[in-house]
Amino acid sequence: MTDAASGIRIGTLAVIGVGLIGGSFSLALKRAGLVQRVIGVGRTQSNLDTALRLGAIDEATTDAAAAVSQADVVLLASPVGQFPELMAQIAPALRPHTIVTDGGSTKQDVIAYAKRFLGEHFRRFVPAHPIAGTERSGAAAAFADLYRDRNVILAPHPELESSAVELVRGAWEACGAHVVELDAARHDEIFAAVSHLPHIIAFALVSMLAKREDSRTLLGFSGGGLRDTVRIAGSSPEMWRDICVANRDALLTLLDDYAKELELARGAIESGDGDALETMFERARDARQRWLLKERAS
Amino acid sequence: MTDAASGIRIGTLAVIGVGLIGGSFSLALKRAGLVQRVIGVGRTQSNLDTALRLGAIDEATTDAAAAVSQADVVLLASPVGQFPELMAQIAPALRPHTIVTDGGSTKQDVIAYAKRFLGEHFRRFVPAHPIAGTERSGAAAAFADLYRDRNVILAPHPELESSAVELVRGAWEACGAHVVELDAARHDEIFAAVSHLPHIIAFALVSMLAKREDSRTLLGFSGGGLRDTVRIAGSSPEMWRDICVANRDALLTLLDDYAKELELARGAIESGDGDALETMFERARDARQRWLLKERAS
Repeated sequence: MTDAASGIRIGTLAVIGVGLIGGSFSLALKRAGLVQRVIGVGRTQSNLDTALRLGAIDEATTDAAAAVSQADVVLLASPVGQFPELMAQIAPALRPHTIVTDGGSTKQDVIAYAKRFLGEHFRRFVPAHPIAGTERSGAAAAFADLYRDRNVILAPHPELESSAVELVRGAWEACGAHVVELDAARHDEIFAAVSHLPHIIAFALVSMLAKREDSRTLLGFSGGGLRDTVRIAGSSPEMWRDICVANRDALLTLLDDYAKELELARGAIESGDGDALETMFERARDARQRWLLKERAS
Repeated sequence: MTDAASGIRIGTLAVIGVGLIGGSFSLALKRAGLVQRVIGVGRTQSNLDTALRLGAIDEATTDAAAAVSQADVVLLASPVGQFPELMAQIAPALRPHTIVTDGGSTKQDVIAYAKRFLGEHFRRFVPAHPIAGTERSGAAAAFADLYRDRNVILAPHPELESSAVELVRGAWEACGAHVVELDAARHDEIFAAVSHLPHIIAFALVSMLAKREDSRTLLGFSGGGLRDTVRIAGSSPEMWRDICVANRDALLTLLDDYAKELELARGAIESGDGDALETMFERARDARQRWLLKERAS
């Protein structure tokens, strides 16, 4: 099948990890008529069955090497912590022309794994990160419109073949996404700030409340404010564990900055310094407003 | 006007601070046909004009004492930091039978102010806290359904006349709210945990990001996760300044607990302890799921 605009055609796509990210990529490419066959690779049969039932994949297997031996494009969409083992497993089975890409939320570590484990195929490994997702996970959460008008970051490395980048760019554009290229280190720094840190903040808040003996009473009295603030604490613990470990350095710096900001608020509360609190809260409100205005305008 | 169920009738209601909370209370009581006349008291004419135009109030003034001298019920719905001055100002003008209530987010401090400044009227001061609100503020944000199926906490004090409690309870029920009584100290502890702390967390996160030179770039790459997490950072800086100062003791304890939880996450990231991170994230996700299930069931 051929996309009129990009000329892209994918015979067989192997999606390793058919969850929200992998399943939605497959559904969007199928709807765009860009892919002929999708093989889903997973760890649990029940999730693969769901993906088959939803039409996200055409065939299912738990054998990643067998799947990629038939694939023209491979998407790694499992938690990043599984990438080293998966890459080592698939590398010998990859066909010479096969392009490998991923959907991981960190890029420096993934590039390092690919360089180490994919051998010759590193030249056709396109590091990617779709900025989309909900707090839900698994194939049942996948939908074809997940990537519409969302950013997808590509973080090309120096050894990468440009034809591989172009294919992956075209595939994401066919999903309705805007493709942006970023240096891997800058990518990891940016998303540590706007995604990984907020997740840790939300997880830590609910974890702290959950440890209290009166946690059920507390939560029973909560309103929409807490509900939205901790929505992302519903995200996959395994995925976020891997992200935190992978993006260690950027996160440690940000956690220290954030702890300092909280300490400023604490100090102002302790000393009854209403002006300092108001200044901080105004800075936050104004920045949020500018950001939302810009978002609406774009 | 008389409410068939409760027999409540309010001749003249004075709403001091015609914003989201005060304006919505007025709109809901008017729709229920419970109140004959509403006088809005505010600091800025433009907001009062908006409230008049929306029908939230029938008359507008900047003179709180003049307004309460005609009122049967007074709702204090301004930021809590203004309460001492407002109470001192209105106390001499209150009619003997007039009931005073409030919509403040903290209760121990408000009760202390009322005891100090309302004199004889302390017996008819009903401390209340509607658990409703959005990140928007001002009369333009008010709507009659704000309180439907939401909790309103009453925190009665020992000197309070039961007839005053019953009137205020009936008024909130007529707005569609569920009324719950709590001890003031327990109220402040609960809402420090599920509302005040989350606001500080959100304000501090955006404030920290806004201080960075690359803040616009960062926010430009952010997705729905950050957007929801910091929605409440759009709330009124003045109102939240007052709440933080008022609920100092409960907040300091919680901020310390939260800093410890973040430090646990930081330590696990630093040492690459994925198991510890996963345990924390799972605790959070499971608690959130139990809470949402319970919410849906109720």
